[in-house]
Order: sequence, then C-alpha cells, then structure tokens
Amino acid sequence: MAPPSHCHVNTNGATAVPVVEPEADTAQHARKMLDPEEFRRLGHQVVDFIADYYAKMETYPVHPDVTPGFLRRQLPAEAPSRPEPDDAFAAAMKDVHDLILPGLTHWQSPRHFAHFPASSSTVGALGEALAAGLNVVPFTWAASPAATELEMVVVDWLGKALHLPETLLFAGGGGGTLLGTSCEAILCTLVAARDRKLAEIGEHRTGDLVVYCSDQTHFAFRKAARVAGIRTANIREVATRRDDDAFALSPAVLEAAMRADADAGRVPLFLCATVGTTQTTAVDPLRHLADGVEAVDSFSVNAHKWLLANNDCCAVWVKRPSLLTAALGTDHDEYILKGGAAAEGHDVVDYKDWSVTLTRRFRALKLWLVLRCHGVEGLRDVVRAHIRMAAVFESMVKADARFEVVAKRRFALVCFRLRSPERFGGEKTANELNRTLLDRVNATGSGPYMSSAKVGGVYMLRCAIGSTLTEERHVRDAWKVVQDRAASLLRKMEIINSVLA
Amino acid sequence: MAPPSHCHVNTNGATAVPVVEPEADTAQHARKMLDPEEFRRLGHQVVDFIADYYAKMETYPVHPDVTPGFLRRQLPAEAPSRPEPDDAFAAAMKDVHDLILPGLTHWQSPRHFAHFPASSSTVGALGEALAAGLNVVPFTWAASPAATELEMVVVDWLGKALHLPETLLFAGGGGGTLLGTSCEAILCTLVAARDRKLAEIGEHRTGDLVVYCSDQTHFAFRKAARVAGIRTANIREVATRRDDDAFALSPAVLEAAMRADADAGRVPLFLCATVGTTQTTAVDPLRHLADGVEAVDSFSVNAHKWLLANNDCCAVWVKRPSLLTAALGTDHDEYILKGGAAAEGHDVVDYKDWSVTLTRRFRALKLWLVLRCHGVEGLRDVVRAHIRMAAVFESMVKADARFEVVAKRRFALVCFRLRSPERFGGEKTANELNRTLLDRVNATGSGPYMSSAKVGGVYMLRCAIGSTLTEERHVRDAWKVVQDRAASLLRKMEIINSVLA
Repeated sequence: MAPPSHCHVNTNGATAVPVVEPEADTAQHARKMLDPEEFRRLGHQVVDFIADYYAKMETYPVHPDVTPGFLRRQLPAEAPSRPEPDDAFAAAMKDVHDLILPGLTHWQSPRHFAHFPASSSTVGALGEALAAGLNVVPFTWAASPAATELEMVVVDWLGKALHLPETLLFAGGGGGTLLGTSCEAILCTLVAARDRKLAEIGEHRTGDLVVYCSDQTHFAFRKAARVAGIRTANIREVATRRDDDAFALSPAVLEAAMRADADAGRVPLFLCATVGTTQTTAVDPLRHLADGVEAVDSFSVNAHKWLLANNDCCAVWVKRPSLLTAALGTDHDEYILKGGAAAEGHDVVDYKDWSVTLTRRFRALKLWLVLRCHGVEGLRDVVRAHIRMAAVFESMVKADARFEVVAKRRFALVCFRLRSPERFGGEKTANELNRTLLDRVNATGSGPYMSSAKVGGVYMLRCAIGSTLTEERHVRDAWKVVQDRAASLLRKMEIINSVLA
Repeated sequence: MAPPSHCHVNTNGATAVPVVEPEADTAQHARKMLDPEEFRRLGHQVVDFIADYYAKMETYPVHPDVTPGFLRRQLPAEAPSRPEPDDAFAAAMKDVHDLILPGLTHWQSPRHFAHFPASSSTVGALGEALAAGLNVVPFTWAASPAATELEMVVVDWLGKALHLPETLLFAGGGGGTLLGTSCEAILCTLVAARDRKLAEIGEHRTGDLVVYCSDQTHFAFRKAARVAGIRTANIREVATRRDDDAFALSPAVLEAAMRADADAGRVPLFLCATVGTTQTTAVDPLRHLADGVEAVDSFSVNAHKWLLANNDCCAVWVKRPSLLTAALGTDHDEYILKGGAAAEGHDVVDYKDWSVTLTRRFRALKLWLVLRCHGVEGLRDVVRAHIRMAAVFESMVKADARFEVVAKRRFALVCFRLRSPERFGGEKTANELNRTLLDRVNATGSGPYMSSAKVGGVYMLRCAIGSTLTEERHVRDAWKVVQDRAASLLRKMEIINSVLA
C-alpha cells in the first residue's frame, strides 16, 4: 500500500522533540526565566528602546536599501547552544538595533504611504505587551473567564461605535469575536455558510457552490474561498468599471451572474461586499457607506488598520453565532474543562468554536484599552485627521495639470498618476512612465514610500495616509518629492525624445 | 432573484465606518497617540505592573471563583465617547488590576497543571512587546526584509535544534514559517496537499479525498479537515488501544483503512501523526520519537507550548514550499510591492503565500530572542526540569495503592486516577468518583488546577507540568491536595455506603 500523498507530524502539546532524560534539578534554572525582577530590569530596557525608536523614526529611510540575503548572511547558521556569558539580552538588543532595524520597512514612519497603514498607538502596543505578559489562553470561558467576557464587551462596544445593527451584536442575539485578520474572518463565516447550505442540499453538491465578489475585492476573499474548498471556477469576480460605478460592484451585473449560476443548477452561496477596496477604496453599494448593513449576515473590520490597535486585531460579527459554532465547534472532550459548577445553566461563549484556531491571544485587552483611553471620538479624530490630509494631497495633485486623480477619493487614499504627454506616446507609455516615477519616488530614502495599483489596465500610484505619526508637513513634503521626481523624469524623456526625433 | 445564502461585508484597508467629514486640524491630536515620551511613561508602568503580577502570582487562585456574566455586568454597555479627563490609562490599569486579574485563569501560576502549559518567559513576553512596538507587517520580503529573513533564519535554527532532516529546512531545499497555531499549520499543509492531488485527479473528485489520524489526535486536525472541505465521512480516526500501543496509531490498522478506501475508489490524501497526543501524550510510531521523520512532508510544533515563546508561535516546516505557495499564493497584484530592483534575480520568500493570512506579526523576533538568550541547551534544561518533576509526581502516585497511573508517562504529563474500591462498585463508579475528585481538587483555590481526559471509556485526571514558575514543591503540594481530597471523598463514600448497606 502506498503511503498517503502527504504525511504531517504534529508535536502538539507538552511535547518537544529534544527530549532528554532528566539529569539534575534544573527547576531553579527554569524559574529564573520568568523572574519578576529580571523582567522589570529587561522590560524597562525594552520600553526605552521602543520609545527611542519612535523618537528617531523620522531619521530612518522608510524602506531599507538592502538586497535579499543581507541579513541571513550576517547571522550564524545555528542557534547558540548556550547564551553569551555576559548579558545575552543586551547583546541581542544591540543586534536588533544594529542589524535588524536598518533592514526593516518602517511601517510607523510618518512617510509610510504604501499599502494600507498598520496603525499604532502607545496604548495599542502596550495592550499587546500586557496580554503577552499575562499570557492567558481564552479558548473557553473557563480557561479565562475575564478574557472571554472582555472580548464580548469590547466587540459590542466597537459594533455600536460603527453603528452596526443590533442583530450583529450580543446585545441583539448575534455576537462578535476578535481574530487575527480579515482573511480568517471571511474563512470562518464562509465555512459556516457552506456547512449550513450543504446540510440542506447534501455534501455531494460542494462542487456546485458559487461565491461572489468584485474584481476589486481583496484577494483575501479568493484565498479564503480556495481554502474552504470552493472550486476555483466557482469564484465569480464581477467586473467593475471606472466610469459607471467608480469600481464598485454593480447589483445588476451581480444579479445576472447569480441568475446564470442558478439556471445552470449551481448554488449561489456567499457574497463578499467591500466598504473601501484595497486598490482604490471603492465602496460596494450598501447605500450610503455602511447603511444597508441590516441585510448582511456578517461584518468584519481590521481594527489594526485604522483604529490604533496594533497588529493583529480583526473584529467580526455574525447574526447567527450558532452557524459558526456548528461548523467550527469541537465536541466537548474531557480535555476541555467546561465552566464546571460555575457555568451550569449558563449559556457560555467558548471562543474556540468561533474560529479556526483553538489557542488564541487575549486581543480584547488591547482593543479595550484603546477604546477606553481614546474614546470613540478620539478614534474619529484620527480618522478625520487622515481624511483631511488626504484631501490636502488630492487638492495638490489636482492643482498640477501634469497629474490626474485616477479614482474617486473616498477616505484617506489618493490614487493618482502622471499624464503621459502625447509626444511621449500618451496612453501607450503612461503605465511605464508612472511605474518609473514610483521607483524614483521610493528610491529617495529620506522621502515618502508609496505603492501602486493597476485597475482596468491603468497603473496608478497610491498615497495612503494613515500612519499615526503623519502630519500635514509630511504630506506636503511627499508631494514635493513626487513633483520633483516627475519633473526630472519628464526632462529626461524630453532629451531622449529629441535625440530619437 | 433571491440573495445568496450569506452576505458578508468586509471593511478592509484604510476604511472605517465612523466616517465623518474632516472638521479641523486634528493631526496634532493623532500624533500624541504615539508620542515617544508618553510611550516611555506608560510603558514603564506596564512593565512594573507585569513584574508585580509575576511576583504575586502565587497569591492568586489558579482559577477564579466567578460565574458567567460577572465581568459583563460590571462594565458599561458602550465605549466612552471621550476618555476620562484625568489619567485614563491609570484608571484603565486599575480596572485591569481590580476587575480583570481576579477573573482570569492564571496560566502562569506554578500551580496550573491543566491542559498543556502556555509557556512564558521574560524574553518571550518582551519579544512580543518589542514586535508590537515596531509593528511592521512582514507579508512580503519587501514589506519588511529583515523580518522575513529573521523568520527564515530562526525556523532553520529551531529545526536544527529539533534534529529535523535537512530536507525540511531552507538549508536543504525545504523551509519553514511561523504561524499562530497548529491548526493553521495543519490547514495550510492540508490545503497544499489537497490542491496538488486535485490537480492530478480533477476538482470533481474532492469528495473522494480521505484523511487519517488516530482517535487520539487533537481535534485541531478534524477542524482543519472540515474547514478545507474534506467530507466529514472521509475523516478516518483510527482506533487506538491502551494495552497494545499505549494509545498510539497502529500502522497495521491504518494500512487496512487506507486499503479499504483505495479499494472503494477513494483517495488516501493526508496522514496526521502526533508526537505526544493531547490527552495522554501518546506517540504515533515514527520509530523513536521523531526519528523516522525523514519520511514526512511537513512538521509542526507549538513553540508557545514548551519553548518559552509566549502566545502565539507555531513553527511549521515543509519539504516542498512550492506546494504551499501554489495553493495559498496570490497573484502579484500591483498593490503588493515586490522587492523592486533590489529583489530582481533573487528568489525571495513572500510569507503571505505560505499561510492563510496576509497580515502577519513579526513573530520571528520573539523566537529569535528566546533562542539567543537561552540557547538550545537552556530550553532543554527547562524541558528536563519539567520531565523530572513529572517523574516525581508519577512516583508519588505509584507509591499510593489507592491510585493508578493510567497511561504511560512519556514527557511531563501524568494521567492518573483513584481506583474505586469494589465495595463502592469498582469500575462501575470509578469515572464518577474521579470526576468528583477533580472538582474537589480544583475547588481548593490555593491548590493545584488540573484537567481530565477520557480515553477508551476511562476517565482520568491529568497533571501537566510545564509552567515556567513551577518548582518541585508545587508538585509535591499538589499531590498532597489530591491525596487529602481523595481521603475525604473516600471517607464520605464509606459513610454513604454504610448507611445504604
């Protein structure tokens, strides 16, 4: 008999492979690894290290000038057998400073305008640090009652702040949880929807399930659908258009796609709509932004993206938690201590049944501290500040006839490009021109770091404002760098053009 | 046209629902949320808070005496609109101390013997804190070159320390990554194996794929298989036996199951073997522990379980990274900045293509600090200390004729139970007796906190040693509590028995 295609070994639980027979009483040694006074001593060093890093943030180029392998070449091929004899921690922190920091892309730089921000705050970072220090595992209510309940409280808090309908909150019969990322949130809700539908129509019809998104939906959705076993051919990416809907999902086109699938005997299962797509922050039609959300079955938002909760923290709410727990719940092994007498007669939330993972961090502590210490209006101020700065950037782009704003600005992302003069080939060379422009902008070191998108064949630069440290002067400086690089690029093309002419 | 079964809204990226038009220049306000000196001031408070918590760890009952709803009732139903005017952070930390700590299960208590440990260390906690402070997102090499390369280095370090074959390491053509949990590791490798097989036999045969584990395998595997769309009926849990194999997977029984599936036209896809099962730390036959691992395609270990890397940190290695990236890779949108000129001609690892999630934390920093500051031998000392203490506990159980050790002790877990005297019904009442014993042991407050397992119909108590702070005296005290509760329980049963007789 041939072996199965794939053999995996899991060393789960209290097992480690370097098992050796006990030799001597090494408990004292072990205990020292979590000594309170040693924690205090080293902890203060780490706090100062981070504070100093923030203070010097502007001196770092956002993106390092390194080539692949630069760090691997500098580190030994094997872990040390024993730590350096003196102060191993100090030596390691020196390496963090000298080797690692210079090789990082500094996501907290006020000049980081690429992708979307990984928003940071003092309270968010310290909330994560505190959770790491407590190091509890709230996989069931009993395994950490306060952590479970704080999570229930804080997802309701956030849901109310976002004006979600009551039906998605614990207060209204639904409920939420904190996962790592959107992709996990989509995967969990998709698996719940899938299993519920298959219970109705039979597991043999898995291949008939169809899911829908737009061609602007984050690829996290396609990935989640593939992981959940949805056929590649059954992932419908509804085409969007720049002119009609500013890259939003068209209800008419969606309906036609669903009807065609239903007519062919397939089963429309899941629609993923987006408020603020990755490439251009397009908004799929839920009426005004998130109004219309009453009709949805689940909702997710990355609090680590714009709500000051350091990585990672994705909140997801569902109307029917029982569908999640039916799909992701585990039978209650004896291994899992239920609440015991304390929980009897109570409807206890065991968050392990709401997600893929069983082990989980105490993420609620961080989000609770952020909401508590800044308030909902404080977070809104941050959002407002970034939107205002994006409007400033947009107005500067619009005031320069060499440039155009390519996609409607809705939040704090400006998608723009340099128009290619007709004498350089116009549209034919526009994409290449802008790709070169981005490379030059990003190569400045002391300047901004941006990213790009390509939508409907049009290449564009993306200036996403969202770093906590960004101020208007950084935005104005960034625009000056773009203009300067554009001018020099156009000058060079002019020369080439005249030589070739 | 009816709507699809499920409608999900994702507010991914730089979008938040509480969108408001910009009103005033609030950038200064935003910037204050990441002020270096404020970080320093609050950071030192958090460090002292955690150090004080460790110092007082022994004074907390491991498991709180609370009932569901205890915390939710004490917290307001909505987030504050604005923070308290004085020192909101100090007020929040007071609530952490007064409301949250008393409601936690203290996983770092030296008397926490339940489940498996969530191992902590000063360096592990601070590594997580440092990563939260830097808050970079190493989803591609370009998005954080040093973070990506440190991850490559540290998984090779750990793989070598575990004596994994070269073929699973970057050094030997394979490679590894750091995920959150085992369940994610299994899910990713399973999806990779699934897609490779379906590419061979066609997507229409998804329903024929069969996966194998033992009836002792962690339910993370069943969950991963269900998420990946493997039919519930095609998840084979090979029965194990106490007498023959000490609950290990029997190769003969596995082979018979695979043959029956193949004969019926099904496709044996994936075997998940375990070194140290959840309930009793049984070892599936890979020859001596992890020897024989040369034949496997992937390997995972939770470094947050016994290797001092605070939650969460699961290392997974694969022989063929290309299978992972084929299944989980995303087309390279323009949105994703590749390495640009720097990466040209290099084979760059983009870790987003190795896992379900795109956003990810800088977990490598923590594991690297742990290995650097304790060395491989330091971690082995910890493992040795725990095994030695488990042997002490086991010998005490064996020396008391009222008890028996139920499953062979292999690592630091002792599975034991009270024999039920014949006059109380013997085997008939043994399970109930031991369940009551566990309740009494765990109700002591100042005593140990253990969990249970039920294997082959036999209920047993589990004493899992692995907390960093545990010393031999805690193990000896725990045993005294078990003996004391057992004596009082037996005495009470004796009285009931004599009344009934």
